[in-house]
Amino acid sequence: MVIDLNADLGEGFGIWRIGDDEALLDVVSSANVACGFHAGDPLIIRRTCAAAVDRGVVIGAQVSYRDLSGFGRREIEMDPDELHADVLYQLAAVDGIARSLGGRVAYVKPHGALYNRACRDVAHAEAVVAAVADYAAGLPHHPRPLPILTLPTSVVHRVAERYRVPTVSECFADRAYTPEGTLVPRRMPGAVLHDPEVVAERAVRMARDGVVTAIDGTELRIEARSVCVHGDTPDAVRLAQTVRKALDSAGVTVAPFA
Amino acid sequence: MVIDLNADLGEGFGIWRIGDDEALLDVVSSANVACGFHAGDPLIIRRTCAAAVDRGVVIGAQVSYRDLSGFGRREIEMDPDELHADVLYQLAAVDGIARSLGGRVAYVKPHGALYNRACRDVAHAEAVVAAVADYAAGLPHHPRPLPILTLPTSVVHRVAERYRVPTVSECFADRAYTPEGTLVPRRMPGAVLHDPEVVAERAVRMARDGVVTAIDGTELRIEARSVCVHGDTPDAVRLAQTVRKALDSAGVTVAPFA
Amino acid sequence: MVIDLNADLGEGFGIWRIGDDEALLDVVSSANVACGFHAGDPLIIRRTCAAAVDRGVVIGAQVSYRDLSGFGRREIEMDPDELHADVLYQLAAVDGIARSLGGRVAYVKPHGALYNRACRDVAHAEAVVAAVADYAAGLPHHPRPLPILTLPTSVVHRVAERYRVPTVSECFADRAYTPEGTLVPRRMPGAVLHDPEVVAERAVRMARDGVVTAIDGTELRIEARSVCVHGDTPDAVRLAQTVRKALDSAGVTVAPFA
Amino acid sequence: MVIDLNADLGEGFGIWRIGDDEALLDVVSSANVACGFHAGDPLIIRRTCAAAVDRGVVIGAQVSYRDLSGFGRREIEMDPDELHADVLYQLAAVDGIARSLGGRVAYVKPHGALYNRACRDVAHAEAVVAAVADYAAGLPHHPRPLPILTLPTSVVHRVAERYRVPTVSECFADRAYTPEGTLVPRRMPGAVLHDPEVVAERAVRMARDGVVTAIDGTELRIEARSVCVHGDTPDAVRLAQTVRKALDSAGVTVAPFA
Repeated sequence: MVIDLNADLGEGFGIWRIGDDEALLDVVSSANVACGFHAGDPLIIRRTCAAAVDRGVVIGAQVSYRDLSGFGRREIEMDPDELHADVLYQLAAVDGIARSLGGRVAYVKPHGALYNRACRDVAHAEAVVAAVADYAAGLPHHPRPLPILTLPTSVVHRVAERYRVPTVSECFADRAYTPEGTLVPRRMPGAVLHDPEVVAERAVRMARDGVVTAIDGTELRIEARSVCVHGDTPDAVRLAQTVRKALDSAGVTVAPFA
Repeated sequence: MVIDLNADLGEGFGIWRIGDDEALLDVVSSANVACGFHAGDPLIIRRTCAAAVDRGVVIGAQVSYRDLSGFGRREIEMDPDELHADVLYQLAAVDGIARSLGGRVAYVKPHGALYNRACRDVAHAEAVVAAVADYAAGLPHHPRPLPILTLPTSVVHRVAERYRVPTVSECFADRAYTPEGTLVPRRMPGAVLHDPEVVAERAVRMARDGVVTAIDGTELRIEARSVCVHGDTPDAVRLAQTVRKALDSAGVTVAPFA
Repeated sequence: MVIDLNADLGEGFGIWRIGDDEALLDVVSSANVACGFHAGDPLIIRRTCAAAVDRGVVIGAQVSYRDLSGFGRREIEMDPDELHADVLYQLAAVDGIARSLGGRVAYVKPHGALYNRACRDVAHAEAVVAAVADYAAGLPHHPRPLPILTLPTSVVHRVAERYRVPTVSECFADRAYTPEGTLVPRRMPGAVLHDPEVVAERAVRMARDGVVTAIDGTELRIEARSVCVHGDTPDAVRLAQTVRKALDSAGVTVAPFA
Repeated sequence: MVIDLNADLGEGFGIWRIGDDEALLDVVSSANVACGFHAGDPLIIRRTCAAAVDRGVVIGAQVSYRDLSGFGRREIEMDPDELHADVLYQLAAVDGIARSLGGRVAYVKPHGALYNRACRDVAHAEAVVAAVADYAAGLPHHPRPLPILTLPTSVVHRVAERYRVPTVSECFADRAYTPEGTLVPRRMPGAVLHDPEVVAERAVRMARDGVVTAIDGTELRIEARSVCVHGDTPDAVRLAQTVRKALDSAGVTVAPFA
């Protein structure tokens, strides 16, 4: 039994910071590094990548809409052609920085509003997938495209198949699920779970048994190679540490998928 | 007799444009592509790189201070460590986009205020040079670092030698020179030459004879493998075309240095 | 018979420019000045306001979503509370600059995607209207709120009534109308008219007779105190001049509504 | 004996925050509100102004170079004409928001690198002073220009006199002074004092006796109607509270100068 733990990292900008990156890097196996469009300036990207490389944490490019003032959480009705170029730019920039430090970007995870949009909208999903495919085609020796990390129910997964881009499924231990296997929207009561013990127990069931209890009590089968833990709340580190400890105790090995 | 002709390209942003990129690409052999920090958004970068690849024009990364509102023309007293990361980010982003189109970035040219600063300031020159070196070290098979294109009198050249980063010298056909071989500052009378015939004749003498007449009449020896033509003035295209025609007529082959 | 002619002005940023502001200012009676969020930096705002004040052209604040890279043409799913603050900030900034030059902002016109959104969405319309009301309440002696300039069919008009904010209706001489009196979307064939004579004749009928022929041939009654002419196309100035000349010849007085 | 306590507030952007604005607002009498150029988006400005108005804390406009990624701490070699427009824009925007909430901007304090530059450079000082003068001239009934808050040794003070713009002097309780009455640069050892008791005692001596001990032991006369306390360090609130308590105990009344 093996599972990956991923969290968003490097989400500061200039003088500003969010979350305790150092502490989270000691817990997760994969770091979704902000690429400069919703957060993360080049120096923060470099320091975050350096810290990840030091610990053997795998680096992912957390690509986003260009939206510093909205932290990438607002949908933007943008042209897919422009989105394609934006994703390619972010991915290349972070990969170049990671490589200069002896690492590399090993997967792509869309951020915030782009994540949600790409999970249901074919045009924006295609822009992301095509950018990932084009980036790989441009590298020396044309490696296989990087996997895209999203929900298993995501439109991205269907689109990626067409483009021969691999995908990896993740689940959220601190979010409530509908009986259909989608996330309960944040604005609904009970959408976000805060009790570390409860969240940790869900993570263990997800990782060990492939099961989660939906908000109506239904037992849901869940396919996921990675569990996402959030890093931007005051209690994020403690929550992530509790999840990690519970997985370790349950005999689940935490290891990167990439 | 061979010389390279370089010009700044892709210097629009969003809806805005400067210069006639298509027309200039038919004249030059090297395109200094704006990287998004003083101009150039990802879609413009992609389109500019695509047009350059189509015509066999060599692509350079025109790295800059982060300064959209000042077009990179204002010196910013920034930390060299941050500048290093900014340059690495820009270079990696544009190289990734160029590669996805079958091209690649083949040299680096600092833009505007960073160009001037890096020509005289060791700390900022080192930040640029180290970023170029680090980027090469991160690529598969560690190719030789990309050459940096600046004035032959530049501090960058001395610094680059220490870092084993190659350099290429350029000259300016439409700028007046001091007897010391530096450019007469733009604010001085006579600093910029506008007559296409005069500029074209200077370009031919620079390329064929390695000589330019300084503002006091001194004949200066000039070492340059590339002549820079400006693209951001109303008459830029006609000037560039006149220079190109004059070089062709004088039997000077225009070809990229990279 | 009196009509206002309005156009978007000051839509450059930093070194970039769009349209010929000086020429348009000689034709229009109202200038929609970009406020810095989709275009227009403070220096451009100051110069545009100064040129308007010089010619007795009335100044409007062309408020927008914060979106330089998309020129304010992309809808952003933003929080109405944040939009309220953004509109207030833009309006106050441009009014302060206009006043320092002896002018003042005399009306508000939303730009691009915000214009379209506020014409159909109550929440975003309320954010704009409330910001305009709040700004007036804060000025010494609490003047009446500034009028908001949009389509007569706009949701903004209904919302403004509730907030006791005045509205002014405009029409578009170079855009096709549906039989319902809304604009034919830009992506449809025939949506934008380019022949200056045709556009000028429509402007005269709109101003003199209050009538426009819809795309299906229906004669539509149209209530408008202002005609919008676009400034961002290559032929914009000639189009605007032709419209102005036709109005003058038809005995329609061009004068600001504010 | 009366002294003003001022601190920088509202220095977040989007999702990011610095310092505990609520706690600081309970201690200071004047709030230097960030205007959106180095920090502070319109919603943060509105919330900060609302909180200040609620508590009767006086609002100042903390104008800055346009530099979000550098937090306004990097000198930018910008054109004074452009700086003038930038300052006018920021001042007008924040004053408009403050007025919409029943408050108003009552003074101007340059931020970071602009503060330092304006204290020694006539051209940038003039740009700030002229913008402040122009803003007042544009308001209904032409009130007296707002006072500018800086060091008493500042070039701004000399320039302001010429423009008939009032000035107010401040001192720094947690910064070491040279025998000449200027601040010891931050990079020098001992430049910043951290012990709350020491800082509080200095504040009391400054406020009550008009004296500070310079870094070489010299007793310096100091003229200041305001003491600046920093808000961006982890211990900022405790430091500010300690200073406030010491002033209260020493019988010094803390009250706004404006």
